[in-house]
Amino acid sequence: MSEGSNTGLAAQVEAIAKAARMASFEMAVLPTATKNAILERIGALCVERKEKILEANRIDLEAGEKAGLSAPMLDRLKLDDRRIDQMVEGLHQVAGLPDPVGEEIERMSPPRGLDIRRIRVPIGVIGIIYESRPNVTIDCAALCLKSGNAAILRGGKEAFHTNTALAAIIGDALVESGVPAAAVSLIPTTDREALKVLLGLDAYVHCIIPRGGEGLIRFVVENSRIPVIKHYQGVCSIYVDKEAEVTKAVAILCNAKCQRPGVCNAVENLFIHRNAVDMHLPVIAKRLVAKKVELRVDAALLPTFKDWGIPCKEATDQDFFTEFLGLVIAIKPVDSVSEVVRMINHYGSGHSDAIVTENRETAETFLRGVDSATVYWNASTRFTDGFEFGMGAEIGISTDRLHARGPMGLRELCSYKYIIYGKGEVR
Amino acid sequence: MSEGSNTGLAAQVEAIAKAARMASFEMAVLPTATKNAILERIGALCVERKEKILEANRIDLEAGEKAGLSAPMLDRLKLDDRRIDQMVEGLHQVAGLPDPVGEEIERMSPPRGLDIRRIRVPIGVIGIIYESRPNVTIDCAALCLKSGNAAILRGGKEAFHTNTALAAIIGDALVESGVPAAAVSLIPTTDREALKVLLGLDAYVHCIIPRGGEGLIRFVVENSRIPVIKHYQGVCSIYVDKEAEVTKAVAILCNAKCQRPGVCNAVENLFIHRNAVDMHLPVIAKRLVAKKVELRVDAALLPTFKDWGIPCKEATDQDFFTEFLGLVIAIKPVDSVSEVVRMINHYGSGHSDAIVTENRETAETFLRGVDSATVYWNASTRFTDGFEFGMGAEIGISTDRLHARGPMGLRELCSYKYIIYGKGEVR
Repeated sequence: MSEGSNTGLAAQVEAIAKAARMASFEMAVLPTATKNAILERIGALCVERKEKILEANRIDLEAGEKAGLSAPMLDRLKLDDRRIDQMVEGLHQVAGLPDPVGEEIERMSPPRGLDIRRIRVPIGVIGIIYESRPNVTIDCAALCLKSGNAAILRGGKEAFHTNTALAAIIGDALVESGVPAAAVSLIPTTDREALKVLLGLDAYVHCIIPRGGEGLIRFVVENSRIPVIKHYQGVCSIYVDKEAEVTKAVAILCNAKCQRPGVCNAVENLFIHRNAVDMHLPVIAKRLVAKKVELRVDAALLPTFKDWGIPCKEATDQDFFTEFLGLVIAIKPVDSVSEVVRMINHYGSGHSDAIVTENRETAETFLRGVDSATVYWNASTRFTDGFEFGMGAEIGISTDRLHARGPMGLRELCSYKYIIYGKGEVR
Repeated sequence: MSEGSNTGLAAQVEAIAKAARMASFEMAVLPTATKNAILERIGALCVERKEKILEANRIDLEAGEKAGLSAPMLDRLKLDDRRIDQMVEGLHQVAGLPDPVGEEIERMSPPRGLDIRRIRVPIGVIGIIYESRPNVTIDCAALCLKSGNAAILRGGKEAFHTNTALAAIIGDALVESGVPAAAVSLIPTTDREALKVLLGLDAYVHCIIPRGGEGLIRFVVENSRIPVIKHYQGVCSIYVDKEAEVTKAVAILCNAKCQRPGVCNAVENLFIHRNAVDMHLPVIAKRLVAKKVELRVDAALLPTFKDWGIPCKEATDQDFFTEFLGLVIAIKPVDSVSEVVRMINHYGSGHSDAIVTENRETAETFLRGVDSATVYWNASTRFTDGFEFGMGAEIGISTDRLHARGPMGLRELCSYKYIIYGKGEVR
């Protein structure tokens, strides 16, 4: 930060953060109806200015093509009528969710009878660091607004023009409602130095949520003085116990592996009790192969698979740490539920894991011992999702343990405070 | 970390953190009775080995005297029979508190009728960084143990021998109960490089709680990759409204300023509505002066104080940001409750603030608008305390907004997980 231009950049980012903090005080006491009206107005402006948004998006797409972005990257970047409609529908849904701010979470029972209540309040200022999907701009702004937070958005350079067009819409909708535009700011540069400056401003910003690949998350964690809530990958496992019902095991594994293999709550590892191998594994493996899943099996099982004539590869140790994001599953036999608990705590990412068994005691040992955000007994890991949990839209699925774990909805974007109603009490 | 000795140090700290993480899996499922037995056993060993503890403490005290530590520093460092008894009583109290682990926090109402429960679980591994008080070793270990966490303790160099003696007792009590000693580790060096290494080990340590002065907290925040829960100072304010009852105002102010002026929930600033100045301020000010409180008043009030013949000094702007930790109070007039909300959000530290008024609407504006962990209507700020809130012993009072805010008891040392009981459900 010794050069003149960097000092200017630092001052600019600091001014944004400071203004966001000031705006956050207003956001915290904004009536629900005003917040909902702003959300609906953003939606209306997205429709009204659709051509402008698509034009900005075309600039980004052309630059991306020139820069040689991959087809999936370009697809993530692209907006069209359908995707804009989805953004508008998302805004409408968030407007329809209950306002978490002001909810009484708990009434305390203090020894001296004071009337103490724990009340939900916004966190304050939230920084969202994301990559190429421009819809994140609208989705995250909506969730932050509804939960009474100010948001500082820092999108990827690929989507810069699109994000700028969307941020202008949000700013206009805010100002029309008498709320400072600083309640939702887009950092007007994708310079990494600007991001570093932002990550140091713990006097104004209370929480950083990075949404993106491991490289981005690592950069943020390494450079942030502000607490970061990470949304890392999902290395999810399913354990088929010796007392599993095979029809449930097959249905759950096929669903968790094949229904949408590219998502974080898809299963990557199958652990199976040694006593269940002969009875259940051929059925399960054949069904997975029929669904075009590649099996990577522990060396100990290779001869067995050969006997059965089921195609497979040998799994490396690294395979059990890997989020395949595709039709691949790693398979390993275990001797007990305690062993599988140790395995999952070793290989997994603490996201979502399931046991298939009819034995309640075995299930309870698994559910208590596996140290993951979400643990399932006889259900698919695919249910880890804000909507499926009844939270509504989520900002992500936290693989962290402080503040929020698992799906993060509106309530998880809140902090709390204690309000004490006295009659002149002193100590 | 390029030199041989530093590499050795880094490896040693990493080994401690890794062992703590392994131990945390056992701690997470330890029965309540075992945890309580360990706590009582630590207490018994403190009594049994009292002479050993006091001997270690004498070594620290002598070194401290030679190093020229101040009298208050030496007093904080000193253990004696009474202080050891207090530690033992503290252990007994924590053993008596309900076990937070496994509590059902919430039963979800998901749209598809899955049985989803949010259950309290330990955070995992907690690093406590503290200064010269050796009782913190026992107090923090007790709270971490009871909440099922593994703890890594890093005390100040002044108390090194005392802390080592106490950590040995904790280790013995753990091992006697079949729990790995690594469940509570003391970093065996007070080298700052070792602390830096610890603060980088986010693969094993989930949360850092620094307890100490601003310098220590800043060092920790600047060097940590692990989320930090800060316990900063308390710059607390009381607002006397134009509709205040003066007897309540006097009682609350005298209590909040004078009962124990050196603590974080003591009041530092008095804001008063301009229309209440003539009516209430002379009574309040005289009573504070009678209690030997130094008044630092806003320039606008100086002539008034001169007319009244009440001694005072002129307050600087900095005074309103200051935790005096003594019998000093800064006084400023305001024109409205909205102005005082802005003032407190500007000058305060987000700890504890109070309004004295008989007007409910004014009170609600204050309680909603002041962005502090604890806000009071007609009660003293001195109540911000884990015991007074009915939480039992506290590890500190968080001035942060993520995860825990205000007094942090056993429940605030926990995270949660979702347990889903299925019948074979798939998506």
